[in-house]
Amino acid sequence: MGVNGTKGRVLRAIETITRRVEERGEPLFHGGEQPLPAKREMIAILRGLQEVIYPGYFGEQALYRENLHAHLGDQLYALSRRLECEVKKALASELRLPGRVPVPRADGDAHEVVTAFFERLPEVMELIAGDVEAAYEGDPAATCLEEVILAYPGVKATFTYRLAHLLHTLQVPLLPRIMTEFAHNETGVDIHPGAAIGREFFIDHGTGVVIGETTVLGERVKLYQGVTLGALSFPRDKSGELMRGVKRHPTLEDDVVVYAGATILGGDTVVGAGSIIGGNVWLTHSVPRQSRVTLSRDQLANEITTRAQTLSR
Amino acid sequence: MGVNGTKGRVLRAIETITRRVEERGEPLFHGGEQPLPAKREMIAILRGLQEVIYPGYFGEQALYRENLHAHLGDQLYALSRRLECEVKKALASELRLPGRVPVPRADGDAHEVVTAFFERLPEVMELIAGDVEAAYEGDPAATCLEEVILAYPGVKATFTYRLAHLLHTLQVPLLPRIMTEFAHNETGVDIHPGAAIGREFFIDHGTGVVIGETTVLGERVKLYQGVTLGALSFPRDKSGELMRGVKRHPTLEDDVVVYAGATILGGDTVVGAGSIIGGNVWLTHSVPRQSRVTLSRDQLANEITTRAQTLSR
Amino acid sequence: MGVNGTKGRVLRAIETITRRVEERGEPLFHGGEQPLPAKREMIAILRGLQEVIYPGYFGEQALYRENLHAHLGDQLYALSRRLECEVKKALASELRLPGRVPVPRADGDAHEVVTAFFERLPEVMELIAGDVEAAYEGDPAATCLEEVILAYPGVKATFTYRLAHLLHTLQVPLLPRIMTEFAHNETGVDIHPGAAIGREFFIDHGTGVVIGETTVLGERVKLYQGVTLGALSFPRDKSGELMRGVKRHPTLEDDVVVYAGATILGGDTVVGAGSIIGGNVWLTHSVPRQSRVTLSRDQLANEITTRAQTLSR
Amino acid sequence: MGVNGTKGRVLRAIETITRRVEERGEPLFHGGEQPLPAKREMIAILRGLQEVIYPGYFGEQALYRENLHAHLGDQLYALSRRLECEVKKALASELRLPGRVPVPRADGDAHEVVTAFFERLPEVMELIAGDVEAAYEGDPAATCLEEVILAYPGVKATFTYRLAHLLHTLQVPLLPRIMTEFAHNETGVDIHPGAAIGREFFIDHGTGVVIGETTVLGERVKLYQGVTLGALSFPRDKSGELMRGVKRHPTLEDDVVVYAGATILGGDTVVGAGSIIGGNVWLTHSVPRQSRVTLSRDQLANEITTRAQTLSR
Amino acid sequence: MGVNGTKGRVLRAIETITRRVEERGEPLFHGGEQPLPAKREMIAILRGLQEVIYPGYFGEQALYRENLHAHLGDQLYALSRRLECEVKKALASELRLPGRVPVPRADGDAHEVVTAFFERLPEVMELIAGDVEAAYEGDPAATCLEEVILAYPGVKATFTYRLAHLLHTLQVPLLPRIMTEFAHNETGVDIHPGAAIGREFFIDHGTGVVIGETTVLGERVKLYQGVTLGALSFPRDKSGELMRGVKRHPTLEDDVVVYAGATILGGDTVVGAGSIIGGNVWLTHSVPRQSRVTLSRDQLANEITTRAQTLSR
Amino acid sequence: MGVNGTKGRVLRAIETITRRVEERGEPLFHGGEQPLPAKREMIAILRGLQEVIYPGYFGEQALYRENLHAHLGDQLYALSRRLECEVKKALASELRLPGRVPVPRADGDAHEVVTAFFERLPEVMELIAGDVEAAYEGDPAATCLEEVILAYPGVKATFTYRLAHLLHTLQVPLLPRIMTEFAHNETGVDIHPGAAIGREFFIDHGTGVVIGETTVLGERVKLYQGVTLGALSFPRDKSGELMRGVKRHPTLEDDVVVYAGATILGGDTVVGAGSIIGGNVWLTHSVPRQSRVTLSRDQLANEITTRAQTLSR
Repeated sequence: MGVNGTKGRVLRAIETITRRVEERGEPLFHGGEQPLPAKREMIAILRGLQEVIYPGYFGEQALYRENLHAHLGDQLYALSRRLECEVKKALASELRLPGRVPVPRADGDAHEVVTAFFERLPEVMELIAGDVEAAYEGDPAATCLEEVILAYPGVKATFTYRLAHLLHTLQVPLLPRIMTEFAHNETGVDIHPGAAIGREFFIDHGTGVVIGETTVLGERVKLYQGVTLGALSFPRDKSGELMRGVKRHPTLEDDVVVYAGATILGGDTVVGAGSIIGGNVWLTHSVPRQSRVTLSRDQLANEITTRAQTLSR
Repeated sequence: MGVNGTKGRVLRAIETITRRVEERGEPLFHGGEQPLPAKREMIAILRGLQEVIYPGYFGEQALYRENLHAHLGDQLYALSRRLECEVKKALASELRLPGRVPVPRADGDAHEVVTAFFERLPEVMELIAGDVEAAYEGDPAATCLEEVILAYPGVKATFTYRLAHLLHTLQVPLLPRIMTEFAHNETGVDIHPGAAIGREFFIDHGTGVVIGETTVLGERVKLYQGVTLGALSFPRDKSGELMRGVKRHPTLEDDVVVYAGATILGGDTVVGAGSIIGGNVWLTHSVPRQSRVTLSRDQLANEITTRAQTLSR
Repeated sequence: MGVNGTKGRVLRAIETITRRVEERGEPLFHGGEQPLPAKREMIAILRGLQEVIYPGYFGEQALYRENLHAHLGDQLYALSRRLECEVKKALASELRLPGRVPVPRADGDAHEVVTAFFERLPEVMELIAGDVEAAYEGDPAATCLEEVILAYPGVKATFTYRLAHLLHTLQVPLLPRIMTEFAHNETGVDIHPGAAIGREFFIDHGTGVVIGETTVLGERVKLYQGVTLGALSFPRDKSGELMRGVKRHPTLEDDVVVYAGATILGGDTVVGAGSIIGGNVWLTHSVPRQSRVTLSRDQLANEITTRAQTLSR
Repeated sequence: MGVNGTKGRVLRAIETITRRVEERGEPLFHGGEQPLPAKREMIAILRGLQEVIYPGYFGEQALYRENLHAHLGDQLYALSRRLECEVKKALASELRLPGRVPVPRADGDAHEVVTAFFERLPEVMELIAGDVEAAYEGDPAATCLEEVILAYPGVKATFTYRLAHLLHTLQVPLLPRIMTEFAHNETGVDIHPGAAIGREFFIDHGTGVVIGETTVLGERVKLYQGVTLGALSFPRDKSGELMRGVKRHPTLEDDVVVYAGATILGGDTVVGAGSIIGGNVWLTHSVPRQSRVTLSRDQLANEITTRAQTLSR
Repeated sequence: MGVNGTKGRVLRAIETITRRVEERGEPLFHGGEQPLPAKREMIAILRGLQEVIYPGYFGEQALYRENLHAHLGDQLYALSRRLECEVKKALASELRLPGRVPVPRADGDAHEVVTAFFERLPEVMELIAGDVEAAYEGDPAATCLEEVILAYPGVKATFTYRLAHLLHTLQVPLLPRIMTEFAHNETGVDIHPGAAIGREFFIDHGTGVVIGETTVLGERVKLYQGVTLGALSFPRDKSGELMRGVKRHPTLEDDVVVYAGATILGGDTVVGAGSIIGGNVWLTHSVPRQSRVTLSRDQLANEITTRAQTLSR
Repeated sequence: MGVNGTKGRVLRAIETITRRVEERGEPLFHGGEQPLPAKREMIAILRGLQEVIYPGYFGEQALYRENLHAHLGDQLYALSRRLECEVKKALASELRLPGRVPVPRADGDAHEVVTAFFERLPEVMELIAGDVEAAYEGDPAATCLEEVILAYPGVKATFTYRLAHLLHTLQVPLLPRIMTEFAHNETGVDIHPGAAIGREFFIDHGTGVVIGETTVLGERVKLYQGVTLGALSFPRDKSGELMRGVKRHPTLEDDVVVYAGATILGGDTVVGAGSIIGGNVWLTHSVPRQSRVTLSRDQLANEITTRAQTLSR
């Protein structure tokens, strides 16, 4: 077969691929008339918010106290317009929200959503400041707050979750998940925007942490890398469809610490306040306040031995 | 020592470093006459394929159904030329393929490889569509297909693996690994391009998943974060060299589910169809169809207690 | 409420946010007179060093052996100036170093630090070459050195750690951590720049590996994904403050292998030379040379059963 | 005055400037609700058209005959959407057109305009091809058509004029002028988009050429650098306002050649077919077909001498 | 000669070139310790000022009246810092100012200069607004102010001159000339920053206009393309050196109009108020108020004929 | 007609345009197999040479004397490779050279050409240094050499011509013209790369200067804006074709000065050494050494009057 022959083969292959893609309707194709929110733009907005909330840390522009007021005002307004644009696309796309019949949103909704977002941002910023403080307090390797803000993946993931959660509570589809998935990509920490997390939250190292959609965390909770707060099983309705939106993930009360690699599962599982869950523990039932749950070989062996002794009597 | 003095020291240090690098031959230096495939270009090609396969999702350009045909045709042809260019470099570099004597490739090979790649792409696209569907079906937190395509790391990793595996089966060195490592970087999911994976594959959350080179997965397999499908030991040949290319990783038959943090090792380990492997389980031997393998403290304790009771009788 | 009304609300919200940010002093605001080191620039310098140390692998420019000498010299000198600029900012910011009273650094210090960095770079480059060799030797899936350099996350993380550690030993704050956190982001491997790691170090797959600040590793250590070398508890001083800088992380002697998901904790924990720590093992005490520590269900069950038998006699 | 003092002065100066700008209403401020057409975008569209009309000359992408059809179709459609977007802004801005009461344009007008633009583009492309041919034929220094297309400023200016004129005839305000001014900037040739120019038009060298709004040129006209085809005076209406849209610039019939630096002025001035106007000539009245008009010192002197002789008789 | 041979020749040639450049001292080499002002940065600052003075015209960002105040304040402050940085380099470089012994400038001078620049900017902005108005009034082809601001080269050149002249009067070397040369490049209009130009100045078409350093123009002056306001001769001092800074260029009083291609030369040449200088006129002596100076063939002929008649009587 | 209708019209129009372009063969289409030299790349190479020849003036990178040698060597070698790549394309395209039968160039020619280019570059750099010196000496407004290098359009145009001419003498088609046309665009000065120009050449202001292909200039020639050195007529051969390559443009001997707007035409026209040609003069015949040729109204009038007087006697 000559060169023309193989060229013809490539062209025929491309024609086949093209036709396959064309034949697919939505949702596999989203075009210019009804575009999806732009992932890159949403990430850029997130970065913009990060620059504004920690001025001088992430941005490129030299900042001076003298013009901080004007600079922040300018940036925030521009970000509010850009966010409104993406929210409008997300609302228009009539994407389903979990456990909810899609309600058609009126035209001004995107503006209302963004207004509410900025009105509630100050309290979220306080939560974020608390998280930074908790990270500094909680890690002896932290040498200064600057290091915590610039280089702690848990802090970055929590920051993003806080903003995504705010948007989630305003019932915006798709965007919150794009935000947290970006943080997941960057940090290895996967927090669903639907989770409810109290103040002064700290995740150390973070890679592999998973926090499910209906998780509830109290204040001052601390997690280490590889911790899963997940579902035990997925309830299905009578027709066999997965039931979406039901509480499937655990609750951790105030001051709980969970060490690396532990797995806590189930919507009814409640870890009482002040408990410590050891590394690699697999926990699927509730434990009372101030519990110490660990899985060391010796501890396990001792416990079993005790039972064995009891039995052997 | 004056300023000139320390400047002289920097310059001498640089001279030393330069000489060290120069003294090293290939493979530590790859120059313009015989360049390595360009990592950034290969990633750009991968992104281009993603834009074409999910039009309107990732690209920057506004798309309209009216010009979809021309757009896809144009993009695909350009991608085919760019891919051919990288394949040519990969073949020219005579990099070793696992378990194979390096065969000199004739000049037209790169074109033939790329032609075959595009000819087989439609079936790979069907596999990809099946994976997306499986993710939507398998996760109650998924609110719409759009979210799954845009924001599910497991879907992204599987997508990349599918394309890399196709290139791997066409015996192109280096490029498939660059592709899957890019996905690993982005998602924390590390799938070797040599693994064989059936249709409707789903990885949830994904961080920390490792799927080794000689793994074989059936259809509708589902993995959670932190699952390792690895090697138990590395066989060596008589001369003590690692034997490359031998089956070292497990086989999972159809409809197997493996929960978070489980580890399944060994080339002879076969998990029978429909089995469920619990979180954190460490499995190094085969289990029959429909097995339930779990490692909960209570379950373990119960089992041991039972043995103890038996023994104590 | 009319459109003007909601616009007014956004503006008021922005005003509130702006005032909140302004009220915060340092360290939450770093301005143009006393800027923080620039994260992006530091990452760019790191990439520049990577391009110079592996010429032809990562850079964009076509390289030729004929001008390699001039090219490397030019790049290295430029990198030395850029690094000096960032070091100057890091030293000026008087950021605290662990366990140390902040010493004001004299003006020429940044130049001296960078000079020392480049003077010691050749030996670090030898360590890096050893790590690459160890990765190739240690992984049967590796088909060529090129693949190891281009696509092995453990190699990338170790490379970055080696450079960051050199800067750390020169007592530069903040920058080393920015470097390793960048590698963490890219690879899922989190190595504190303060850790001390011997030659021919290899991490396979890597996602989820955590190596704490005061860890000490001998030569030829090999780790798999998800391994934690962490702290058991955090000592506090009399006033209840965390004691920073104390040895809290384990020591692994030469030729230790640690399989996936294992956790080794504590500053006094020493793993003797040549030991193998199995997957998912949780180890908080020292083990002698050539130990084999594993946690398989069967092994655990057998051990308990033995005890039960003993007891039941 | 201390440093704070001068900083305060800068801030006060900025406040003053800001207030000045704010006080100005439209047209000096055009905001996001009613934006002006974007100059950069319009220039990018122009470049896009240039790449499509001369494929392989100006663009960055490698082109192949095999995918030319798809490539052009894709590019043209994308350009049509981008152009429509700018036309919509231009029409919405209700900018005055010369000699015309501004007519409110209905909503679909932008689409209609762009449709007409692309429908007429093929004939404009033929004019452009004729201009290229004329340049090659007319300049002995031209070595190949490629040089003419890539490097002849007159060809570039004429190309841009042709497209701008088409948009001008479709009564789009502002955009045509932005286009020709871009060409003026690049080439020094200033052709008003309202001018009417016949086929096979060639401007050599071009710097300083000015062709006014109501100029009419026949076929095969050839101009050299520094030629002005301008207005003699500006008629004003009874109220003293400049009358816009009246014919103020000359007419040059077929096959006229005008050499460098000549100036031809006035709406009633007609240069008959086949005439040659010499360098630096200043012409404000009509001349018949086949005229030779020159201003050499000797020629002038001779003419005057003749008159003087006549008078002295 | 083999390939190695020619490669060696290239390398030797490069070595020669390198040595030649190295041998040259300042001013041909300006290095990092004592850098020249950065041309690109200066142009970027100029563009920034243009965006601020005509908001919504040239910038990329969507602007809204609601945040105009913050936006302008932020932009202006940032521009003031960037300008100060370039001014500092210009002052440090001790470049000679015309007719002046270089005075070492104290450290705070750059800040003082920039403060003064911004303090005087409001009046310059009024001059600029007057120039725009004059362009609209003066050109019947102008359809709206927007077109004048966006697409009139004369307006752009004058705008740039106004800012450059302000910096020139503050005795900053080099930067003003970089600014006007940028405008020259873009518009073909070459105005020396030292020229003194009154309000409501308009240049139509503009290509080829040259306005020398010591030119003085009154109010409402109007120039057409190709006009030169130049020097007649260059006075030299006793040692034969060119005398720099002496008035060498003409003065045009209020309301003078100069048509295309006219040349007016000499430091003592004064064109009286309200005069009209015709196209292509060459004028080297003063003319009184309300003069009409033209060079048409007929007019010239008539004048000469008149003289001839007189003589022949 | 509905929306679909007009959309259909756009698509049909695009189809028509596409078919028109496709039908055209070379030279209107240049594809990937036989690409034209890339204009942007050629301009980038030119800029690279400018940065190397005036280090610290135009580039972005901080330069230091300590690494100047390595920096220049690296840059020059890289530029030599990039230039070779463009030269190869230009030679392969078999573009006609003026007055010459296209000779097929052998494969190594591009390398040989580039080698020769760099070997002759040092003498061209000396010419360039002489031009800079001449500009400083010749313009009383010049305050320092830095200003001359950074901001004098004539210097920039001459610089570019010098390099383009070198490439032209090496018989490379197309590239020299792309280079000089870029300078024409930037400066308004149009010098054909074929012209032969002696040392210490200076063009002041420059806009509108045209120097034709077969022009010959001696040493220390000085031109002002708007000067044309052009052809009087274009000789045709027997078949009526334009004769390309014949001397059509004038010769100016050493130390000639030509003032603004003068036009000198014809291949046999020789301006003798030391002559001064006045502004706007139109000269089509040779003048002897030390001539003064001017066209002032008075001078002209006087001359004519003299003749009239003579006649009237």
